[in-house]
Amino acid sequence: MSAKNINIIGAGLVGSLLSIYLSKRGHNITIYERRPDMRKANISAGKSINLALSDRGWRGLEGVGIANEIKKIAIPMYGRFIHNKNGNTQFQPYGKKDQAINSVSRAEINMKLMDLAEQQAKVKIYFNERCTHIDKATLTTYLEHNETKKTTQSQSHLVFGADGAFAASRLNMQLHSDRFEYSQHYISAGYKELIIPPGENGKFLMEKNALHIWPRGSFMMIALPNPDGNFTCTLFLPFEGEKSFAKLNTKEAVKQFFEEEFPDAVPLMPTLLDDFMNNPTSSLVTVKCYPWVFENKITLIGDAAHAIVPFYGQGMNCGFEDCVVLDELMAKHPNDWDTILSTYQHLRKPDSDAIADLAIGNFVEMRDKTADPTFVLQKKIEARFSEKYPDKWLPLYSMVTFSPQVRYSTALKEGVKQQAIMDSIMALPHITQKWDSEEVEQLMLAQLK
Amino acid sequence: MSAKNINIIGAGLVGSLLSIYLSKRGHNITIYERRPDMRKANISAGKSINLALSDRGWRGLEGVGIANEIKKIAIPMYGRFIHNKNGNTQFQPYGKKDQAINSVSRAEINMKLMDLAEQQAKVKIYFNERCTHIDKATLTTYLEHNETKKTTQSQSHLVFGADGAFAASRLNMQLHSDRFEYSQHYISAGYKELIIPPGENGKFLMEKNALHIWPRGSFMMIALPNPDGNFTCTLFLPFEGEKSFAKLNTKEAVKQFFEEEFPDAVPLMPTLLDDFMNNPTSSLVTVKCYPWVFENKITLIGDAAHAIVPFYGQGMNCGFEDCVVLDELMAKHPNDWDTILSTYQHLRKPDSDAIADLAIGNFVEMRDKTADPTFVLQKKIEARFSEKYPDKWLPLYSMVTFSPQVRYSTALKEGVKQQAIMDSIMALPHITQKWDSEEVEQLMLAQLK
Repeated sequence: MSAKNINIIGAGLVGSLLSIYLSKRGHNITIYERRPDMRKANISAGKSINLALSDRGWRGLEGVGIANEIKKIAIPMYGRFIHNKNGNTQFQPYGKKDQAINSVSRAEINMKLMDLAEQQAKVKIYFNERCTHIDKATLTTYLEHNETKKTTQSQSHLVFGADGAFAASRLNMQLHSDRFEYSQHYISAGYKELIIPPGENGKFLMEKNALHIWPRGSFMMIALPNPDGNFTCTLFLPFEGEKSFAKLNTKEAVKQFFEEEFPDAVPLMPTLLDDFMNNPTSSLVTVKCYPWVFENKITLIGDAAHAIVPFYGQGMNCGFEDCVVLDELMAKHPNDWDTILSTYQHLRKPDSDAIADLAIGNFVEMRDKTADPTFVLQKKIEARFSEKYPDKWLPLYSMVTFSPQVRYSTALKEGVKQQAIMDSIMALPHITQKWDSEEVEQLMLAQLK
Repeated sequence: MSAKNINIIGAGLVGSLLSIYLSKRGHNITIYERRPDMRKANISAGKSINLALSDRGWRGLEGVGIANEIKKIAIPMYGRFIHNKNGNTQFQPYGKKDQAINSVSRAEINMKLMDLAEQQAKVKIYFNERCTHIDKATLTTYLEHNETKKTTQSQSHLVFGADGAFAASRLNMQLHSDRFEYSQHYISAGYKELIIPPGENGKFLMEKNALHIWPRGSFMMIALPNPDGNFTCTLFLPFEGEKSFAKLNTKEAVKQFFEEEFPDAVPLMPTLLDDFMNNPTSSLVTVKCYPWVFENKITLIGDAAHAIVPFYGQGMNCGFEDCVVLDELMAKHPNDWDTILSTYQHLRKPDSDAIADLAIGNFVEMRDKTADPTFVLQKKIEARFSEKYPDKWLPLYSMVTFSPQVRYSTALKEGVKQQAIMDSIMALPHITQKWDSEEVEQLMLAQLK
């Protein structure tokens, strides 16, 4: 391809990975990042949720040869580890024996990706540079330095907006493009980061290779492992109502709530009350918009194009997949940027809409259904059937998480069909006794026809 | 009530009327309007759609004693006047014999409302003042003069954002409030203003007291009368596709299209081709958001809170009803602004959502169904039944248009029920022969139970 000068707004996960893909195709990349360099300054806001890197994400990393680098900081989680209120626990595998999603710290993977980006000859990252405006006509990015307040302008052949859920690049398009479809929707729950520190000598105080869930119906806590032996915990709870952040406004109320709801976790959380009071309560947004490409020159990607809630663990994976799709299109239509960009948005819009909706649905699954024996049984039936007839049935979770060859939009459609079949199966009399019977198998086969 | 200093952003229809309501309750009002004073400068952009003032709007005007002033510039339209492609025409009454919606020019009614607002002792309007920011903490409105670029600040006790579908006041809230629900959706059709001028001596060249429609399935033209004998015409047409604005890019194409689709109108439109080329093609947006009230001090109203498409003729009427509801709450809870404003948004949100959805639905009705004999028959059956059993059946259009005592949200719900009943009635064999029979009447009565 003929080399283009490309500006990327945002050196987050997707912006950094995208720069590597583009530089490998010979382009000159300048990234403008609003925040300071996180590798030099600690800019943690106490609001991180650990990421769950899975197959679509790996594919994105493999495409530029950096999967092994990232594997070093990832901890595989082979299933959900459920903590019931009565102290019982249960392990629910995510997929087949060796299939796992991988806990990685957002900061760690982002720093690694920045390092790798800067190792490319043609990638330069500028920090503390806030994008204030992008002029569509002249392809000029206007920037203001956070500290010096110095304003600069940067012209380029193409611009990618990879600046996240509250993207300045997207707002620019909302304000300066006619007929821009846009919605932002907040779920009624917020979240708060908490921590389970390591035991002596960095020992994990719970099962290391699992994603821990305390499902409580209308809310839940989760915990994901980190390499140094601690767990990043996240409480997801409604902002308002009987059990809500609004009610947890004193240490006493927090203590009572946790002792009642998460009795097995409390002894593992020595800094719980201070963390709860000090860490912010953050909101959870879904952003949908269209188009993503303006004047065939300015393109939204990652959360800037499609911010989703975290409950399917697919936000980063979906953003990395954006990069893969774009790269495939660059290979297929070299130099034909009109086709590359218009096909990119045309392909990715239905898939990102699908994963957005799946992610909303998975909140209910995680916080409520994982504690439900019927749901657990359904998963067992599906797993058994899928193992026997792998070409006929791939469980929805596996399609989304372990099957990058299946589009999100296809997975959503298949999932709806599967659920209809499983609803009829779960309604059979005595299903708990005959779940692994020939009869059930035959009924599923019949409905698949 | 104890007098408050209140800033209103926008001197449009709703901002101007609101100022009169608030000043009559003793408050001191300052309106900041982005545009120049339309009474002094002609700021027509060639993109107006005539308004259809109906009972909810009249109620808003009567509440401050200015209905008679406005009646002087309004032309009653008693029904739809349908122009078929083959030259046939048909009159479809909107309601009972004397019920009408009223054609008024947006500019005329706006200027009249500004005059009336300025006649209040306590209302002051500043023009050319663009709101750049509203500080929630200090209730300071930041303004910039369009010509001098001079910036000013204005503190007040309360602020109302009445600055329309693309409100700066709302954007301010979108950017500076967490958990702000927001969506903007454009329909695939756009519109263009055209004109049918008067004949000799200001003669109306079509029926004066009707809303003219040329329904053509996927698109339509409408025409509303003005006092000087002309008609403001609006072509609603998809932006893209076989029959679309994209295709009408030469005078020849426009001429051919109009001659084929609107043969009876073409002779009445001597400036058609120039108007078509000179007037802009505008888009049609629905905006939904929530909350409308911030810190109990900054409140969105009218299109700024709920922009809707024009097909039910309810945009202005809904905004005026906002003012009426607010005024009733001021009467009921004097000085208790927390209650007034929180009840206002709580009451009005479901109603504005309902009329937004009804307005989208009415595009299909106007452009497509008004040409359908089955639809016309259904309206006749409903009208007959409603006349006989007025306490059992009020047609949806009448609820929305002529019944301010029925909430939009109630009308929508009732309308869905009515449509289900009418679907079953219209599916009866030989309904065209027995539509006015005892049998049909009894079936409807039975289904209403």
